[in-house]
Amino acid sequence: MESRIKRIYEMCEHDKPDIVVLANATDPMLDKTFFYATGLGNSGVFEGSYIFCFPDGKVEMITSILEEESAKKGNFPVHTFMTQDERKEKIAGYLKGVDSIGINAKELVHSQYMLLKELAPHAEFIDMSKAVRDARVVKDEAEIETTRIACRIASEAAEEIIPFIKPGIKESDIAAELVYLMQKKGANGPSFDSIVAFQENSAEPHYRAGDRVLKDGEFVLMDFGALYNRYVSDITRTYFMGQPNEKQKKIYNTVLESQLASLDMIKDGVKGADVHNTAAEIINATEFKGRFTHGLGHSIGLSVHDGSGLSPAVDITLKEGMLFTVEPGIYIPGFGGVRIEDDVVVKKNGVEVLTTASKELITI
Amino acid sequence: MESRIKRIYEMCEHDKPDIVVLANATDPMLDKTFFYATGLGNSGVFEGSYIFCFPDGKVEMITSILEEESAKKGNFPVHTFMTQDERKEKIAGYLKGVDSIGINAKELVHSQYMLLKELAPHAEFIDMSKAVRDARVVKDEAEIETTRIACRIASEAAEEIIPFIKPGIKESDIAAELVYLMQKKGANGPSFDSIVAFQENSAEPHYRAGDRVLKDGEFVLMDFGALYNRYVSDITRTYFMGQPNEKQKKIYNTVLESQLASLDMIKDGVKGADVHNTAAEIINATEFKGRFTHGLGHSIGLSVHDGSGLSPAVDITLKEGMLFTVEPGIYIPGFGGVRIEDDVVVKKNGVEVLTTASKELITI
Repeated sequence: MESRIKRIYEMCEHDKPDIVVLANATDPMLDKTFFYATGLGNSGVFEGSYIFCFPDGKVEMITSILEEESAKKGNFPVHTFMTQDERKEKIAGYLKGVDSIGINAKELVHSQYMLLKELAPHAEFIDMSKAVRDARVVKDEAEIETTRIACRIASEAAEEIIPFIKPGIKESDIAAELVYLMQKKGANGPSFDSIVAFQENSAEPHYRAGDRVLKDGEFVLMDFGALYNRYVSDITRTYFMGQPNEKQKKIYNTVLESQLASLDMIKDGVKGADVHNTAAEIINATEFKGRFTHGLGHSIGLSVHDGSGLSPAVDITLKEGMLFTVEPGIYIPGFGGVRIEDDVVVKKNGVEVLTTASKELITI
Repeated sequence: MESRIKRIYEMCEHDKPDIVVLANATDPMLDKTFFYATGLGNSGVFEGSYIFCFPDGKVEMITSILEEESAKKGNFPVHTFMTQDERKEKIAGYLKGVDSIGINAKELVHSQYMLLKELAPHAEFIDMSKAVRDARVVKDEAEIETTRIACRIASEAAEEIIPFIKPGIKESDIAAELVYLMQKKGANGPSFDSIVAFQENSAEPHYRAGDRVLKDGEFVLMDFGALYNRYVSDITRTYFMGQPNEKQKKIYNTVLESQLASLDMIKDGVKGADVHNTAAEIINATEFKGRFTHGLGHSIGLSVHDGSGLSPAVDITLKEGMLFTVEPGIYIPGFGGVRIEDDVVVKKNGVEVLTTASKELITI
């Protein structure tokens, strides 16, 4: 993946390091950039493995003998180790005579940093995490195409789950069915632990799924996604069991209005914070003022939270090829909440919504 | 979880730090010890959250306002932040006047370390990752009970999948069905991306699951597990589609013999490396010499690889309450492989096998 490694070097605003070292610790403490730079697909975990990336875009890997077959699916040199000592020796070989080492401090565990420091005590360490983020946040065609598949899988599941939702069902039953639907459609798994929250549980944005049984007249909030060839989708739909009351309907329509308005704004050149503010202002102009308690969206890619966001706290100008979630919500503790979330690609003059499941107020 | 925090301090072999700080970065870069020390169940992600653990076993948390409801399920003080600056200020408050700070370098990302260092430039940092590992490797009753449920779920799925396996089915179909079976039984999700590998794919220990279609006469290797209340199980069974040939049968029986012999050895006081060596010797005494290419097992708990192992590379004496996988395998590149894996609790005078699915040679 020469072009991606060159991109990381290009994004580096200070002196370019002689070498960029990306290291995985124990699953799940794996650097997603390891997979970005190698383009390795769905096979292999690569715990304790290292890659060495050079300014000319070349990459080499050190991995356990156990993963040799998976590693060889990449088109670059692979060196294997049997023992930790052998690994250390091979890493040292790459660092010999190197003056500056780029690291990705946000996905490198501190103990791996200490090992690099021990092996190259005189080298300068340059934190490339900003360059890595900036490289990864604009996706190339292959990444968008993979994400498109992950989004299609999640969208279809969001629609096909409808006949399964009925009074008496548990949150965890719907969660199980959603993952099953996605895996049958080719997902490698869920992209994160699905959230299925009925009524009052839907007021907790990071609730997961429990034994709560669905009753008539309740919100059914489902936030889930597919993992496909290491790329993720992330969708939320909120349905109603039976007929919503006026308050529920007002919450839903306010969130939907907010979401559609923010989608309308997205295009190359717009500030991410402005998109958030548009969504927030619509909610804050209603009786639900202050009930939208999180950022409007986050970048997705190899990670569910891929380093950037649509939020007042993030200074980003949207560029063609960026992938974001757009997910306003209103949360009323003790009562319930609604969130509507799509995944979108930023285009030159607008937006492509990849998660196409209906957002009409769906009553079951 | 006072007793667990005290345990981490007790396991510390050098000067005890004034405070132990555990920090989560972005999912999945979360420190599992954060959940060990708080005992928080299935709700909440706690990205960017910090806990401060004191020698008397007390803990306090700083988390986003978004996670307040989830955090309050714990029985300890929770302070929330809205912005990164507010978070920084609150962290600084805890570090004021502190001379030594314990960190878990193996699950702390380097950028979070740099933040702590910036906020407490004169404090001594003590890597507690060994103490954390040693504390977590011996489980308390609540942890074993939770794992028992995770193991029961996976074992039942290993047996209930049998009628589903037939020629023409894809690896990914079985993977989907396994996760579905587990989630219907109460799992919060899979504990890792399931491996389902037919025949030649089963020779790759870290293969996942693909489009490969099952044919008569082939190995069906399934390595998967349940996540239940943040604890994991991890089981492997290898079945046969139709009748195995002599070579397949010999591989299977050699692995089974090796697994049973190692299970027989496990009890309090035995060296982990010796258990591995017993298993390896049985395999190496056959024509499959050198084809068992990984460690015999790893500790499980909040992580699938929970810090220790049964391997010549790991110096550990087994203690009552430890949880390990026991999973010898034989891998013949281009032909196929067999692995049989159980999860066990070390007891005073033996072993309790928590994954009870049959290990007889199963032909379908």
